[in-house]
Amino acid sequence: MSPARRFLAELARHTADPPGFTRPSYGKAEQIAHDLARGEAEKLGLEVTTDPAGNLYMTLPGRDRNLPAVFIGSHLDSVSHGGNFDGAAGIAAGLGIVDRIRTTDHLPPRDITVVAIRAEESVWFPMSYIGSKAIFGRLGRDDLTKLRRSDTGQSLANHMREAGFDPDLVADGMGARSPAEIAAFFEVHIEQGPVLESEQITLGLVTGIRGSFRYRQARCLGAYGHSGGTPRTHRLDAVFATAELIQSIEARWRHFEEVGEDLVVTFGILQTNPEQHAFSKVPGETSFCVDARSLSQDTLDAFEAELKALCDGIGKKRSVTFDLGQRTASDPNALDAVLRDGLHDLARASGIPCRLMASGGGHDASVFAGNGVPSALIFVRNQNGSHNPDEHMHLEDLDQAITLLAEFIRKY
Amino acid sequence: MSPARRFLAELARHTADPPGFTRPSYGKAEQIAHDLARGEAEKLGLEVTTDPAGNLYMTLPGRDRNLPAVFIGSHLDSVSHGGNFDGAAGIAAGLGIVDRIRTTDHLPPRDITVVAIRAEESVWFPMSYIGSKAIFGRLGRDDLTKLRRSDTGQSLANHMREAGFDPDLVADGMGARSPAEIAAFFEVHIEQGPVLESEQITLGLVTGIRGSFRYRQARCLGAYGHSGGTPRTHRLDAVFATAELIQSIEARWRHFEEVGEDLVVTFGILQTNPEQHAFSKVPGETSFCVDARSLSQDTLDAFEAELKALCDGIGKKRSVTFDLGQRTASDPNALDAVLRDGLHDLARASGIPCRLMASGGGHDASVFAGNGVPSALIFVRNQNGSHNPDEHMHLEDLDQAITLLAEFIRKY
Repeated sequence: MSPARRFLAELARHTADPPGFTRPSYGKAEQIAHDLARGEAEKLGLEVTTDPAGNLYMTLPGRDRNLPAVFIGSHLDSVSHGGNFDGAAGIAAGLGIVDRIRTTDHLPPRDITVVAIRAEESVWFPMSYIGSKAIFGRLGRDDLTKLRRSDTGQSLANHMREAGFDPDLVADGMGARSPAEIAAFFEVHIEQGPVLESEQITLGLVTGIRGSFRYRQARCLGAYGHSGGTPRTHRLDAVFATAELIQSIEARWRHFEEVGEDLVVTFGILQTNPEQHAFSKVPGETSFCVDARSLSQDTLDAFEAELKALCDGIGKKRSVTFDLGQRTASDPNALDAVLRDGLHDLARASGIPCRLMASGGGHDASVFAGNGVPSALIFVRNQNGSHNPDEHMHLEDLDQAITLLAEFIRKY
Repeated sequence: MSPARRFLAELARHTADPPGFTRPSYGKAEQIAHDLARGEAEKLGLEVTTDPAGNLYMTLPGRDRNLPAVFIGSHLDSVSHGGNFDGAAGIAAGLGIVDRIRTTDHLPPRDITVVAIRAEESVWFPMSYIGSKAIFGRLGRDDLTKLRRSDTGQSLANHMREAGFDPDLVADGMGARSPAEIAAFFEVHIEQGPVLESEQITLGLVTGIRGSFRYRQARCLGAYGHSGGTPRTHRLDAVFATAELIQSIEARWRHFEEVGEDLVVTFGILQTNPEQHAFSKVPGETSFCVDARSLSQDTLDAFEAELKALCDGIGKKRSVTFDLGQRTASDPNALDAVLRDGLHDLARASGIPCRLMASGGGHDASVFAGNGVPSALIFVRNQNGSHNPDEHMHLEDLDQAITLLAEFIRKY
């Protein structure tokens, strides 16, 4: 059995938590995953080290050890009752790629390092990319002491220490990598949406990671009334007003797409107020979330302006008030065009079905890209979405990613 | 102080439950209300009796005691933390009318009976009009033993017995009135909507009580997905689909009104599934209520057909499923046109601002009308809606209702 397949099979066996798999950031099951990766690396004769944050580096030495290394990596934590492949597929791919290069070449031109990154999922600590940030010395002392894990209530520093690592060194930036030490970063990850599966394409080459603006506690305030006794023209009906906002936003989204803008928009939570609503009351209040994402900051800005104008216009027309509440946002992150085009050309030449696409969710690659490391993100089609126990990936599809990247990195 | 005002003032003093007033059906505070009404009736020299269900009859004898009597009545229970006037205004009006007739006429042509009705509000027992139904012998043994009060869990029979009445006689129909004994029924009630207040009109003469169809557990089923990674064309988004349904229904409602149909439509409860929704997930499910009411059964039927067609059409277009769930309904009840027109003419002649209007909510008058008693329902404008502690009514407006009805009934 190949190291990639063996790693995934062992991982499934040791971190199952039916339904699905649970590998909490800095928890026991994440450590099991790191131990399994280390075991495979040692069988391949790789040099293995960790940094003070517990990230695991598994290096195939190259001809010129002074050249910046090629990194291949992803994370090994998972959400609660998630699938086996979200994150772990990238480490399996890294091991597979290194195994392929090791057995077919005498020596690669430069070091190739598979990096198993800690704590990417933000469900455990309320911060994304903890491990990647630590790699670049970007995790502050405040983050370490104040972030608390959702299941234990313990601080990130305590969990790091308990797992055998050193939060004080992390806070001081000891062991951090300079972007100049890294020639390129490659991340293989399952696609989290349905595009590749529905189009029957094996791989996606990611053009960029969408940025976002989010209003998680938006509200519409009207007035409650008797459902039978309040005529249409006397109502301040929050549900009708919110439905008009959502319909209008969907129409604008369609328009943005028609003129070629990248955009996705979601109202993931919507509810009347359970303390006041009743089937026989005109609804006086709704609360809802808006999540808009795009590869382009200009698109996000233009769409947010439209959202606000619609809230104002519908609010005035219906005498209700929209209060969008607190705003959070993240910047779009472009990935490296040279790497992407090179991979795209090679995939076509090799007959591997492949398309360009945006990533809607964040990934460790965006931290590497944000720190100036030329970065590529390769999606593998998967079934049934991600972050759920039904997540699936055909191992043959992962093999295609390994084949493509082994060929590409061999010459890098 | 007039008997009407004194009754309302004493009632407020003795049944306050801040914020507002609470008079549970067959509870102590309802009994206090009945005792206060009886006290006023005795001061007026009326004949006072009760029936086995505890309804209270306060009669000013007329010249010919064999003629069917005129009834004036409403209920004395209230919702929890409701206002002082919902129901009680009708008993105050009855006492005021009888006082006016008693002091200005020697003897009215026939008996005039003020009836304080038990248990109208369906929040206490899951049935409306318990007292009115008992008046006509329409309360079954099953209702008495199986209906349980929401706060105590005790049966209606037990509560009736505890209040000093006799559920066995009620079940046997003992003490029930024949519709032929009642010449007419007049109910004064606060309007439960905002129409009279906003139009600065004192009284509303009700044309009919709206019937309804209701779906209290409707759902839209789509599919969950990653909010960032699922393109618009791949989504089975239950929120977008539900928003389109609600917007389309509102447009159809507007159309029905434009062609002269009586209709009100409410989506009082709307929510994504709290166990599954997240701001970063495409919403895969909504649940909602639909409440449609009209004076015309034909209008209800036509509108319900449109609702179903919209669910089908939007469902197909978006590949989601609408499941309307269990249906409940009530019939529209027309009130007596002769009484209404007579009252309307008299109000105009007397300079009392008055308009015709539908009632969106049910009232005791609909049980009298449903049993064949010519019935009239007179709304008094009120402020801040009903069934809440901010409910308000100007006593001068109630005086206008008393003046109108005293004049009308005197000649009846």
